Amino acid sequence: MNTFDITYRVTVQDDEQIDEKIEGMCIEQTAELPRGVLSSEVEEKVVGKPVSSDQLDETTYEVVIAWPLANIGDDISQFLNILYGNISLQPGIRITSADWEALSPEVFEGPAVGIRELRRRYDILKRPLSATALKPLGSSPKELADRGYSFAKGGIDIIKDDHGLANQEFAPYEERLEACVLSMKRARDEAGSESRYYPNITAFASDTVDRYRRAAEQSADGVLLCPHIAGLETMHRLARLDIDLPIIAHPAFSGGLTTNEDQGLSPDFLYGQLWRALGADFVIYPNKGGRFSFSADECRQINQAATGNHSPFKQSFPMPGGGIKLDAVDKWVNDYGTDITLLIGGSLYEHPDGIEAASKEFQNQVVQAGG
Amino acid sequence: MNTFDITYRVTVQDDEQIDEKIEGMCIEQTAELPRGVLSSEVEEKVVGKPVSSDQLDETTYEVVIAWPLANIGDDISQFLNILYGNISLQPGIRITSADWEALSPEVFEGPAVGIRELRRRYDILKRPLSATALKPLGSSPKELADRGYSFAKGGIDIIKDDHGLANQEFAPYEERLEACVLSMKRARDEAGSESRYYPNITAFASDTVDRYRRAAEQSADGVLLCPHIAGLETMHRLARLDIDLPIIAHPAFSGGLTTNEDQGLSPDFLYGQLWRALGADFVIYPNKGGRFSFSADECRQINQAATGNHSPFKQSFPMPGGGIKLDAVDKWVNDYGTDITLLIGGSLYEHPDGIEAASKEFQNQVVQAGG
Repeated sequence: MNTFDITYRVTVQDDEQIDEKIEGMCIEQTAELPRGVLSSEVEEKVVGKPVSSDQLDETTYEVVIAWPLANIGDDISQFLNILYGNISLQPGIRITSADWEALSPEVFEGPAVGIRELRRRYDILKRPLSATALKPLGSSPKELADRGYSFAKGGIDIIKDDHGLANQEFAPYEERLEACVLSMKRARDEAGSESRYYPNITAFASDTVDRYRRAAEQSADGVLLCPHIAGLETMHRLARLDIDLPIIAHPAFSGGLTTNEDQGLSPDFLYGQLWRALGADFVIYPNKGGRFSFSADECRQINQAATGNHSPFKQSFPMPGGGIKLDAVDKWVNDYGTDITLLIGGSLYEHPDGIEAASKEFQNQVVQAGG
Repeated sequence: MNTFDITYRVTVQDDEQIDEKIEGMCIEQTAELPRGVLSSEVEEKVVGKPVSSDQLDETTYEVVIAWPLANIGDDISQFLNILYGNISLQPGIRITSADWEALSPEVFEGPAVGIRELRRRYDILKRPLSATALKPLGSSPKELADRGYSFAKGGIDIIKDDHGLANQEFAPYEERLEACVLSMKRARDEAGSESRYYPNITAFASDTVDRYRRAAEQSADGVLLCPHIAGLETMHRLARLDIDLPIIAHPAFSGGLTTNEDQGLSPDFLYGQLWRALGADFVIYPNKGGRFSFSADECRQINQAATGNHSPFKQSFPMPGGGIKLDAVDKWVNDYGTDITLLIGGSLYEHPDGIEAASKEFQNQVVQAGG
């Protein structure tokens, strides 16, 4: 029988026994009935099977369970249900990895573009990339486009919408898209800029598809998506369309899954492994030292999961955001390597010499850091 | 300026000051830039405004913030972003209520059917309703339909699919739908049963819409949906279609949001308030004493949020599942009142006299408990 493994860090509570907890998971995520009322056929072909259980400390175990592939077919929704459906409501279960080889390509196909093709397309072969965000919500399309123009003149590689820019009256999607694409063209014509614009297309699933098509028709260079708002499977569907715009995934609304250390999905599992499987070409995550709370180790693990060869999919570009100061680009590149896109926002807006000068300073650091 | 309030329980960490934390939330969920670089116009029309902050204990505060309605327009995705986008990644922020009056009907419209119309349609005017689930995954359509027939002969009011039944080869959606609807008809013709069948339609958003239509065409009585897998907005879209099948919402994949007590969404906010706003006619939640972990108070608060008149929407039927024994129906009805649908699974399958006898016993309790 074909199966796929999922690895968990399980913390037993008060009076729990690890074997009973594992047995409960095997049943809970599949038959949801006591073994006594299951036919031997259902027990054999449906219920999860414990593979291993290694004690890590007094209350914590690394557990591997094998799940029948037939339980999900080719259905990402059903994968999410087996992954973390009912057990999301139980304490002490944290998912740390999955056997992506077994899930590819029937369930997941990964990024359509990936790091290698992005580097070829942008002719940036070795160095890190730079990125920033158009803000704030409340600005008009012209104001955002003007800021984009300044970032582009400063040489930033990727200029994305803030994830809060949707289709509000302040700056409706179509008008913003057109204005910002034009401002990139103007910077290219006037100053040889090669900056690329990625509008935010987060919306209801079918509207997201429409906005993705419009972005391509209007010659945007990629898109930004919040998959935990638009739907995780929506990202995978976009990546499978006959449109080759890269997708940046943003972590809005995802924190409940990753920030409780005894439960949910480890940050490297969600932002690295799962988002990569779901087709993210870039994965934004809250960098250590920013306004959020991942540790340096967790950040490195996300980078490794997004780019490492444990996964059969094309590589996702890690895009740490937050906590990156203009004068510390070297530090992050030394720490994370050059397969990284550094996302910087506030420091550019606050620079006393203005956005264009700040962008130039940032871009110089990024280019030099790439050796 | 039109605004809507959201109420939070905020826990300050180590060296945090409550005023700074609130200021951070007001900025983080909107402009995402320091005030120093915002125009006074953007500050005025976009940034959240603190309404009140009441200290509950040494480290905990009840905080109300008013958000400009223009930040979301009529867009549920953008509401979710303002509600819990970036702050989902920060510790110590738990959402406990929202001003639904201000969000209705432009953003949310609530259940299309609701308790009152369900009672009229099913001619069950005062008593609680009974519900059970067709299981297990791995059964054929015929096996599921046969179990449905036994439940129906036993008189169960609502027979839903297990949320793990999707479109697997074991029992593809179309075949299962047809077989189970027919089994309801057979029980009606042969034994005067009035049981109703609700198939699970959880899938990618657009496929969910297709399955909802098919359920109506095949004369199913309602549907089951896991909104945290299919997408929260998907539920609202289904409820707005010209199809009047009631929707049962299932909490699979939602636990990361509700089970960490200092963070996320309170259970009554998510399963009661938000799901009601999003159009759930029934809200399944893990009952106290089952395999999951909500307290009796939390369960009562969910019931109150789903049915109370603080909300402008039609009422959602609370559907506690888990921990309900055949001989304790009275206890739950005394505790929760009669506007409740009791969901019971394992106890019916395990009954020594079989499913039909168990169902009759359960149904008798439910009818008597309603006075």
